[in-house]
Amino acid sequence: MLSGFMDKKNFGFGTQIRKSPYFDSTVKWGATGFSVYNHMYIPRDFGSPEKNFWNLIEKAILCDVAVERQVEITGPDAYKFTQLLTPRDLSKLAIGQCKYVLITNDNGGIINDPVLLRLAENHFWLSLADSDVLLWAQGVAVNSGLNVKINEPDVSPLQLQGPISGEIMIKLFGEEIRDLKYYWLREYNLDGIPLIVSRTGWSSELGYEIYLRDGSRGNELYEKIMEAGKEHGLQPGHTSSIRRIEGGMLSYHADADIDTNPFELGLDRLISLDSEINFIGKNALKNIKQAGIKRKQVGLELDCDALKGPNTTFWPIYKDEKKIGKVTSAVYSPRLKKNIALAMIEINHSKIGNNLKVLINDVKINCIIVEKPFYDPKKKIASS
Amino acid sequence: MLSGFMDKKNFGFGTQIRKSPYFDSTVKWGATGFSVYNHMYIPRDFGSPEKNFWNLIEKAILCDVAVERQVEITGPDAYKFTQLLTPRDLSKLAIGQCKYVLITNDNGGIINDPVLLRLAENHFWLSLADSDVLLWAQGVAVNSGLNVKINEPDVSPLQLQGPISGEIMIKLFGEEIRDLKYYWLREYNLDGIPLIVSRTGWSSELGYEIYLRDGSRGNELYEKIMEAGKEHGLQPGHTSSIRRIEGGMLSYHADADIDTNPFELGLDRLISLDSEINFIGKNALKNIKQAGIKRKQVGLELDCDALKGPNTTFWPIYKDEKKIGKVTSAVYSPRLKKNIALAMIEINHSKIGNNLKVLINDVKINCIIVEKPFYDPKKKIASS
Repeated sequence: MLSGFMDKKNFGFGTQIRKSPYFDSTVKWGATGFSVYNHMYIPRDFGSPEKNFWNLIEKAILCDVAVERQVEITGPDAYKFTQLLTPRDLSKLAIGQCKYVLITNDNGGIINDPVLLRLAENHFWLSLADSDVLLWAQGVAVNSGLNVKINEPDVSPLQLQGPISGEIMIKLFGEEIRDLKYYWLREYNLDGIPLIVSRTGWSSELGYEIYLRDGSRGNELYEKIMEAGKEHGLQPGHTSSIRRIEGGMLSYHADADIDTNPFELGLDRLISLDSEINFIGKNALKNIKQAGIKRKQVGLELDCDALKGPNTTFWPIYKDEKKIGKVTSAVYSPRLKKNIALAMIEINHSKIGNNLKVLINDVKINCIIVEKPFYDPKKKIASS
Repeated sequence: MLSGFMDKKNFGFGTQIRKSPYFDSTVKWGATGFSVYNHMYIPRDFGSPEKNFWNLIEKAILCDVAVERQVEITGPDAYKFTQLLTPRDLSKLAIGQCKYVLITNDNGGIINDPVLLRLAENHFWLSLADSDVLLWAQGVAVNSGLNVKINEPDVSPLQLQGPISGEIMIKLFGEEIRDLKYYWLREYNLDGIPLIVSRTGWSSELGYEIYLRDGSRGNELYEKIMEAGKEHGLQPGHTSSIRRIEGGMLSYHADADIDTNPFELGLDRLISLDSEINFIGKNALKNIKQAGIKRKQVGLELDCDALKGPNTTFWPIYKDEKKIGKVTSAVYSPRLKKNIALAMIEINHSKIGNNLKVLINDVKINCIIVEKPFYDPKKKIASS
């Protein structure tokens, strides 16, 4: 939560945390608070988070997500190695296609939940959440006997998200961008700036990610997109906690960590235990599935005044006097006019409709377990 | 650079970044700015960095460095596995001893520069700089054939550093603490709080690290130490960029990264190429040594007005019109009354006494290569 800085030339405590290639533009366009993610500053405040939410769902916002660093896997065994890293079956992943995947360790714990991009037969990117998968992958490679090269390329994504993002993309890249299907990618060149464009994002809205492949041209790209979006009402913004919680999307370290397994999150569809593929954590995940999970992620509605912001600690959840879980992400949705939350609780208390208590700043308030996602449960908005 | 927050209960953008067990105490004692390190907030501002520096070198400061997360390695093959992770020869590392080590990848690039603690025959901690060595180590273990358990224990260090830190430690732990030698550790229990204490730190001053082994007792421990230090003039503080640059100590990501090799930093003493030990990166480091390094870290004095804070970008260095390197860490030392810097430059320009130019905010200023460390080059203060 980096706020209140007076002088962008002297922002930060040293060079230990990187600045994004879009840093100057985001400051120019009104970023006033930054967090840190994958050792890089990310703008997280352009004034009101509610205004940012409405900008996103009514028009479109441009978000600097250069912190989604890429792990690039190439070499003759790149496909085989990438499959080793994820429990999702990649045998039908076409060149030009993306998939949301989990990376699991030998215990079946979640290390990251990136978007995987296949750029060529043996050329992959993992577009990361906040952990050093570069080190994990290089570590796995050491004794793997596989011939791969693993590095962090000069790639910095932007997210253009919201219902009018399609119109802005047409203006930038021409009519043919209409054909780009949900979770597919394409190579582009915008006035000499090398890019990959994918129809993905972290908003549950129609949206695109634009992967800059030359860090020296970040501010130039940001300005070009803002200029193209001007007449459509595009606003500078940041990934919206409100919208992503409405959509039940995960934030790594908050809703999942190395001690969380995929079944606890209901992500069984991402785990191919019955196929012949070989991946790290397969035995552990088989055992977990067979034994049955002990905790489960649920959606909650909290019966209290509108929260002023997301929870910044894990609020404990009680059934009678017994602690049975924790709230991982909570926020007030101004559209639903409700406090909504993702929580991890003991499996035997996880039924829809159950009434529980949440302890917030020493006060116990009522909550009820509800279906999630909280809005657009079939993800029709983003995918259609 | 987390500053200007109004309400510690709602500090941050969510639960994605952890709070230290000492968080409440550091806020109570005056922390006003935080950075992020190993996915956790670290206090980096208690008002004036110069005042913090004088507090450190004249008396003592207490620093929350819970962000130095530990990687714990146990199991029957723990010694063999730990040796695999570092080029430093561990054959003489006694139980109860610590060593400053580098962790290198298969290319000889530096992944981290932790302090290694040996707690038992097959029980090690790596006290980390800012990168997920937990993932690296777990990745290496996957196909290693070695029987080890690798996890992050509930351990959160404090640093008590400065010339009177010894007196405060005697008050807390009794006279026997005088025997604790530089880079050795001991187990303690302070009014029921389980601890490890080592004579290490990141200040080049006399100092101790106090590893809390029960995160629920963080604020209690912090307050106990502040109370014990009251009559000696102990101040709350943070690791001092001024003192660590004076001492030529590294800040990972700033002065070294995955593309930096140990020889470029002059850390040959940490690399055992001629022994029989087996470690990751050995072949690559042999090749690098044989071919000779192309860049080298040097110390610089910058001929300009006193810098108002550390550099927040890598300032380019020129010889005539040619870019030959970059300033990695720069600061004004109020004791030396000089602007001092660590820099990485081409080997053929790295001679002591060479005059070069540094570009700071579009202005070229003069600099000269000097010996480093800039103060107490034999590290007598910390080790005697």
